[in-house]
Amino acid sequence: MIKPSILSGMMELLPQDQILFNEIKDTIEETFKKYGFLPLDTPVMEKQEILFAKGGGETSKQVYAFEKGSSKIGLRYDLTVPLARYVSQYFSDINFPFRRYHIAKVYRGERNQRGRYREFYQCDIDIVGHEKLSLYNDAEIPAAMSEVFTKLGFSNFKFLFNNRKLLNGFFESIGLDDFIFTLRTIDKLDKIGEDNVKNEFIDYGLDSKVIDKLLDFIATKGTNDEIIEYLEGLNISNELFQEGLKELKFVYENMKALGVKEENIQIQLSITRGLDYYTGSVYETILTGYESIGSVCSGGRYENLAENYTKQKLPGVGMSIGLTRLFYQLNESNLLKESSAHITDCLIIPMKGYENNGIELLTELRKDDKMVQIYLEGGKLKKQFGYADKLNVPYTIIIGEEEVKSKTYSLRNMITGEQVSCSYDDLIKYL
Amino acid sequence: MIKPSILSGMMELLPQDQILFNEIKDTIEETFKKYGFLPLDTPVMEKQEILFAKGGGETSKQVYAFEKGSSKIGLRYDLTVPLARYVSQYFSDINFPFRRYHIAKVYRGERNQRGRYREFYQCDIDIVGHEKLSLYNDAEIPAAMSEVFTKLGFSNFKFLFNNRKLLNGFFESIGLDDFIFTLRTIDKLDKIGEDNVKNEFIDYGLDSKVIDKLLDFIATKGTNDEIIEYLEGLNISNELFQEGLKELKFVYENMKALGVKEENIQIQLSITRGLDYYTGSVYETILTGYESIGSVCSGGRYENLAENYTKQKLPGVGMSIGLTRLFYQLNESNLLKESSAHITDCLIIPMKGYENNGIELLTELRKDDKMVQIYLEGGKLKKQFGYADKLNVPYTIIIGEEEVKSKTYSLRNMITGEQVSCSYDDLIKYL
Repeated sequence: MIKPSILSGMMELLPQDQILFNEIKDTIEETFKKYGFLPLDTPVMEKQEILFAKGGGETSKQVYAFEKGSSKIGLRYDLTVPLARYVSQYFSDINFPFRRYHIAKVYRGERNQRGRYREFYQCDIDIVGHEKLSLYNDAEIPAAMSEVFTKLGFSNFKFLFNNRKLLNGFFESIGLDDFIFTLRTIDKLDKIGEDNVKNEFIDYGLDSKVIDKLLDFIATKGTNDEIIEYLEGLNISNELFQEGLKELKFVYENMKALGVKEENIQIQLSITRGLDYYTGSVYETILTGYESIGSVCSGGRYENLAENYTKQKLPGVGMSIGLTRLFYQLNESNLLKESSAHITDCLIIPMKGYENNGIELLTELRKDDKMVQIYLEGGKLKKQFGYADKLNVPYTIIIGEEEVKSKTYSLRNMITGEQVSCSYDDLIKYL
Repeated sequence: MIKPSILSGMMELLPQDQILFNEIKDTIEETFKKYGFLPLDTPVMEKQEILFAKGGGETSKQVYAFEKGSSKIGLRYDLTVPLARYVSQYFSDINFPFRRYHIAKVYRGERNQRGRYREFYQCDIDIVGHEKLSLYNDAEIPAAMSEVFTKLGFSNFKFLFNNRKLLNGFFESIGLDDFIFTLRTIDKLDKIGEDNVKNEFIDYGLDSKVIDKLLDFIATKGTNDEIIEYLEGLNISNELFQEGLKELKFVYENMKALGVKEENIQIQLSITRGLDYYTGSVYETILTGYESIGSVCSGGRYENLAENYTKQKLPGVGMSIGLTRLFYQLNESNLLKESSAHITDCLIIPMKGYENNGIELLTELRKDDKMVQIYLEGGKLKKQFGYADKLNVPYTIIIGEEEVKSKTYSLRNMITGEQVSCSYDDLIKYL
């Protein structure tokens, strides 16, 4: 006999939690569809040459890679590489701008840590253009995500929002030409603190005045309008900076026009999105009061999605929710709804000898599209109600001699314990 | 540059087909939920010791197996092994009888053939009891599947239905004690034909009279009532045969009581489900007129689901749809709906300079829960309508100077080409 267990780093839920998880996943999907994103479903297994096209690095060590026959196979580690491969492969069949959503599992053989998973769901939306893509889309993506979070019941989310051109332009204007080093170091602020960041810049040979300017800049606080006013007041003539500022303002205005509330937007100049391929807008999302959870939804604008697979220039913008981690964190922070999650609205419990009457009722109710099941395993009433309790089923119907004679049904509200005798039409109304 | 391509044996669809595929998948899931099956989502990767607990055989050669660090990993090749592992692992948390559905991808490194996939969706429902499980469930499972096929628009499906006890009892009654050999040989009938099957039995040393009895038996044709009458008329006193006959009749009656139409049920004594672990009811499902597609939904009753992982006796009954293969076959047989599949109901096309008016309307319509998107990439009207056409979007709304002045919208029916000028309230009615 083999002890039943799973590999570490996998999330596996009991049905009650799985129902909640699926409700969140369904809400996300419904909203993506409402916003006109098309569904995509690519293989979990990709050719290694596709996954590794970008070259080595941290991610490639995490890939589950193996061979079968003559195939060199890897499990996808995100949904962006498959998207890049897909739009290149089916380029001539695709209607650009291509809006696609993809909700699926990805795999990373990371070091095992609490709240980090090796198999997890990503929920991505991207809009990919051919040659060019309007800046409106940089507002459309967070607008869709805003509706997702609102529908999920989080009124306290905040899009932290910045622009890479603005950042790089500012760096240039104070004489910092090594954007990569600067972005990488700023990105460490939350992890190692201001003093250590300062020291890293000093070690790099930066003048302390420049460092102060930089740290002042990215620490700028205020309302969105105050920050924009501050940025305009800097009177930096650097072209990249001015372009970034124009983009930032345009996207900010259009996010609001598309229904994102002012209170859910925060321009924050310290957001860089590390070393990724982002070239313009960058976003992170926090739940106010639960900042320690980290970003629950991130993304940005990129100039060229698929340069490893095609000569076509494919700019785009997208955001991604790490659903598995989000679910874990919500659970840890007691932010999940008290679990009254259930699939079945009503359980029919026929007395011994009245099974056929129960089945008859069941079949009628299902024809009327009710979510009903029947308990036909026999046993004592206590056991039967125990099954109903564990199902979280809101109603039970008892059928026995009395009910069949009087052509009524005993409907019990499992939450209040109240029991009423009613006709079929009444049943339909209740359920 | 790497040529964008995927591994062979994977189904990957263009958005139009993906929408259709997802519609089918959603219908299946909604029906499973309606029938009170609970959702399960287990890791795609299982420990090799779990997957190989049963010992070697054909299947184990097909498993995608590999190591990472010290972990021996395999991709699941069905959803039954994960179910067995799951109910063993969480036994004390599970509410029996446990009704679960699982719609997910499984992996088999099969030889590459047309219509056979190495990654494919299975859609499983099972009801698993502890110690015992009422025979009613053998009717409940096909009842749920009957609603699935009906909702999918197949009125011409037929459950081919048999009972293993009945078969084994009959074999015993004519002196055939090697059930495994007999079942295996019968199972080849469709593939190698009656003459070859006869020869195999002769080679095995069977008397030709016995072979004729056997082949006559399994070739029995007739209505369900005629076949039951025939079985009763055989007057076979064998206990197993009688038990099987009783079960067959009971399940048949209760399938009808649960709403399965007589025309969708066919008792067929040649159905054996090969060498699987089935012990009672066995089912296959064909689409009448498309028998060559093969069974699109199969399953049966098993006495002990998880003996490799637990001492608990867990009998169950289940059926499974091979969705990827079904989709492929429906497509090949032109049984998929003419593709008017779309996600978005309406595309707003603002004239140059009227983008903000377009966004305003878009935001209003989305607040009213309409599935709308906007085209803001500029360019000529022809290009914009080209985008709308490829989206299959039923309506477009044009906004320009005239519309803004007169506070109306030009709504164009993209199928009829008809265009009307209307108010916002009218828009809501149309969409």
